[in-house]
Amino acid sequence: MPLFRLIPLLFLKFTLVVLVFPFHSASAQNQDSIIIRKIYSEALSNPEGYQSLEYLCTKIGGRICGSPQAELAVRWVKERLGDMGLDTVFLQELKVVHWVRGEKETGYAESIKSGRHEYHVCALGGSVGTGEKGLSALIVEVKDYEELARFGKDKIAGKIVFFNHPADPTFISTFGSYGSSVGYRATGAMQAARYGALGVVIRSATPVHDFNPHTGVMHYADSVPKIPAIAISTNDADRLSELLRTEPGLQFLMRTTCQNLPEVTSYNVIGEIRGTDHPEEIIAVGGHIDSWELGEGAHDDGAGLVQTMEVLRLFKTLGIRPKHTIRFVGFMDEEIAQRGAKRYAEFVKNGGEGLALRSSATNKMTGSVEVKPEKHLAAIECDRGGDTPQGFSIDATDTQVQKISGWKQLLLPYGLWTFEKGGSGVDVKDLKTFGVPLLGMVTDSQRYFDFHHSAADKFSNINVRELELGAAAVAAMVLLIDTYGL
Amino acid sequence: MPLFRLIPLLFLKFTLVVLVFPFHSASAQNQDSIIIRKIYSEALSNPEGYQSLEYLCTKIGGRICGSPQAELAVRWVKERLGDMGLDTVFLQELKVVHWVRGEKETGYAESIKSGRHEYHVCALGGSVGTGEKGLSALIVEVKDYEELARFGKDKIAGKIVFFNHPADPTFISTFGSYGSSVGYRATGAMQAARYGALGVVIRSATPVHDFNPHTGVMHYADSVPKIPAIAISTNDADRLSELLRTEPGLQFLMRTTCQNLPEVTSYNVIGEIRGTDHPEEIIAVGGHIDSWELGEGAHDDGAGLVQTMEVLRLFKTLGIRPKHTIRFVGFMDEEIAQRGAKRYAEFVKNGGEGLALRSSATNKMTGSVEVKPEKHLAAIECDRGGDTPQGFSIDATDTQVQKISGWKQLLLPYGLWTFEKGGSGVDVKDLKTFGVPLLGMVTDSQRYFDFHHSAADKFSNINVRELELGAAAVAAMVLLIDTYGL
Repeated sequence: MPLFRLIPLLFLKFTLVVLVFPFHSASAQNQDSIIIRKIYSEALSNPEGYQSLEYLCTKIGGRICGSPQAELAVRWVKERLGDMGLDTVFLQELKVVHWVRGEKETGYAESIKSGRHEYHVCALGGSVGTGEKGLSALIVEVKDYEELARFGKDKIAGKIVFFNHPADPTFISTFGSYGSSVGYRATGAMQAARYGALGVVIRSATPVHDFNPHTGVMHYADSVPKIPAIAISTNDADRLSELLRTEPGLQFLMRTTCQNLPEVTSYNVIGEIRGTDHPEEIIAVGGHIDSWELGEGAHDDGAGLVQTMEVLRLFKTLGIRPKHTIRFVGFMDEEIAQRGAKRYAEFVKNGGEGLALRSSATNKMTGSVEVKPEKHLAAIECDRGGDTPQGFSIDATDTQVQKISGWKQLLLPYGLWTFEKGGSGVDVKDLKTFGVPLLGMVTDSQRYFDFHHSAADKFSNINVRELELGAAAVAAMVLLIDTYGL
Repeated sequence: MPLFRLIPLLFLKFTLVVLVFPFHSASAQNQDSIIIRKIYSEALSNPEGYQSLEYLCTKIGGRICGSPQAELAVRWVKERLGDMGLDTVFLQELKVVHWVRGEKETGYAESIKSGRHEYHVCALGGSVGTGEKGLSALIVEVKDYEELARFGKDKIAGKIVFFNHPADPTFISTFGSYGSSVGYRATGAMQAARYGALGVVIRSATPVHDFNPHTGVMHYADSVPKIPAIAISTNDADRLSELLRTEPGLQFLMRTTCQNLPEVTSYNVIGEIRGTDHPEEIIAVGGHIDSWELGEGAHDDGAGLVQTMEVLRLFKTLGIRPKHTIRFVGFMDEEIAQRGAKRYAEFVKNGGEGLALRSSATNKMTGSVEVKPEKHLAAIECDRGGDTPQGFSIDATDTQVQKISGWKQLLLPYGLWTFEKGGSGVDVKDLKTFGVPLLGMVTDSQRYFDFHHSAADKFSNINVRELELGAAAVAAMVLLIDTYGL
């Protein structure tokens, strides 16, 4: 597309939407339109959020809960919030599991005929290790749990099970595609252990054809042995499957030195702009601080973290004084056990004692702050990657979903088109018990599983404009909720 | 985003839309929904189009009209169409300009105080060269044409003018941003020449901060001297501007050996599936064969070219027999003078003699075919990059726009949400004279100007799923136009 002559037809900039809404006046609506335009212009002109993400990804890096990097990230978020001159900054203390990957993992098939075939593998999060010497056994490929059951103990006991269940590429949202295969990652080890398997090799849960193993949490059952679990890249899964077709009955060696260590103390990090009219009513926005450590945690979830921090910066910079309290929450431990989400929900229900940052000059925590049981007007989670925002998935009453959809004409000029009832995100979902309307920002999902939980989740795969559009989208939604309630 | 528990909420796959349309029955609509679902499943399961694009980009490469690569690409498109077993394949002969870049370009500022400052530059398409020795003169920065006029002949004559007009980043569509600065690329040389400038250095027309110069066509006026024009990367434009702020009155050297050679023969390439009921009525889809040669012409417009070829493959593979003739057009010379577009419009108006491919076995052109004046039901152009499709921009009557918008509920499950009146594309726009409804596929534009007309426009920057979704989107639109007319 080259020609400048057609360009004027494509201008969206000056499209101030002037349709009349049934529930508020055209002039109020025009006012919203003007403020939303300012939010977008500021977001697209100022790369502060993008630069923050660069620091988080490249200076701190991958940061699974319990790791030194996760604690550096907690401190960094706290300091960023302190620098913003917010009304309140405090931490919520919690305990997190502490799983460590150990040495780089090995996985290979050994054939008398064709020699050693090495694959790109990694331990799944939470898995026990194989021990120093590794685990060597015959490998059996199964495509699903039905086949596993059909094979039964006879064919499975004493072997390594290779779950080769490809993600279905025909879903339009790649989250659907992911969902079609991630169950094997989550419960493959416990299911195979029921039949006496010694270990599992799981095809990475992604529709992408690549050589990166994609990690992620897995679970054990108390009733069966805890056997080691590794992910294998999708391309390698195809190679291994082809090898097993021509040479069945191969020996496979997997070696992992991952361990589950004692739990450690960590934190959710919170920052607020207090509301002018209803400071006791909170609109929360947030993402998670922790990430897998194979990559830099850029899309998952550095992007969501800095986008929701940016919401506060945008309000401060533009001098927007909210009626309700706007709160950023950096959740800890989304990837393994969602301890941060649970801790946050406890605070909302019962209140608690937070560690307060009183002095932004010294950026030191100077005492405790009593948090009372809280009322949330809404909670918005960003945890679907930093690609182009498309709208919001809304977990709320039909009336609330309708109200939010009613703002569509204000948001459509910014490419936000989907406002459907659906899931929000795992860090806010526990708030549903208290009747809080929940929103999850929906992003273009096509590239997300290129990166997800793998070494490819790097800052260099973030597009600055897409990241900025996401921050502006959340800020615009917060503005509308603050103005019109839910 | 990790947890598989939320995934079922996000499934879109089985969303068969069952809203009742006013203009046709629910069961017809359900039938459309089923066929569209099949189109998408086939597109997302079969990487044939993606592999084609890989060949075009990496084996043939950048292909400006008149070049050997452009002719290889013509032959390749013809052979691809021949392999598909189409009902008709033919070429439309035309003459194209033949501009060659010559040696790698040089551009630097020379300072007694701080030495030589080299920049990333490239000649603009169609520019005359500076000659072997290059052009050396004092350089003057101007930010726009107003400033140029204010400086006047006194300050401009005998100098090199540096147009440093940044693209406005606050547009939501980057095409708007591009439009805010591309005028200087197109007409900067002729405007500066009016004041006696000897050459121009143009800030690349992109909102992206990078070190790639972005080329593109420029124009001369007969009334003023033809002076050489180069693009400078946006980061280098900032550096040069900063240097000129601290050290005004610097000498600049630019050297280009580009040339305009005599015109050569080239071709549009056409392939058709003949309609069962109205073979004389054509639904045309297409992209352009030529591309700039700094990169591989992946997003501009290899993507559009293979996506529209894929439309025919999808129809053939799924056994969809269209009522009207579905025609693919590979246009030649979109980037410089749109000769292919003009030639195609002539054929539509007057008919003409096409070179026919009669034998797909030998893939040889075996004679001429008489083309009669034609009726087009619609023409769809794909030339906005291979990123996620979002809908269609429609250049047609209000009634036609409304009719297309009426299909929105069928297409929304596939992320196609925008069906607005607007420009289509430069290769089909001449058909408007004959009252043909025109459509341009709208894609996510955020990354497009990261690549546009620069060395970064490579196959490796194409996402397979996004490309496939685009092919399916056009095929679905063709299906609906074929079924319901316009």
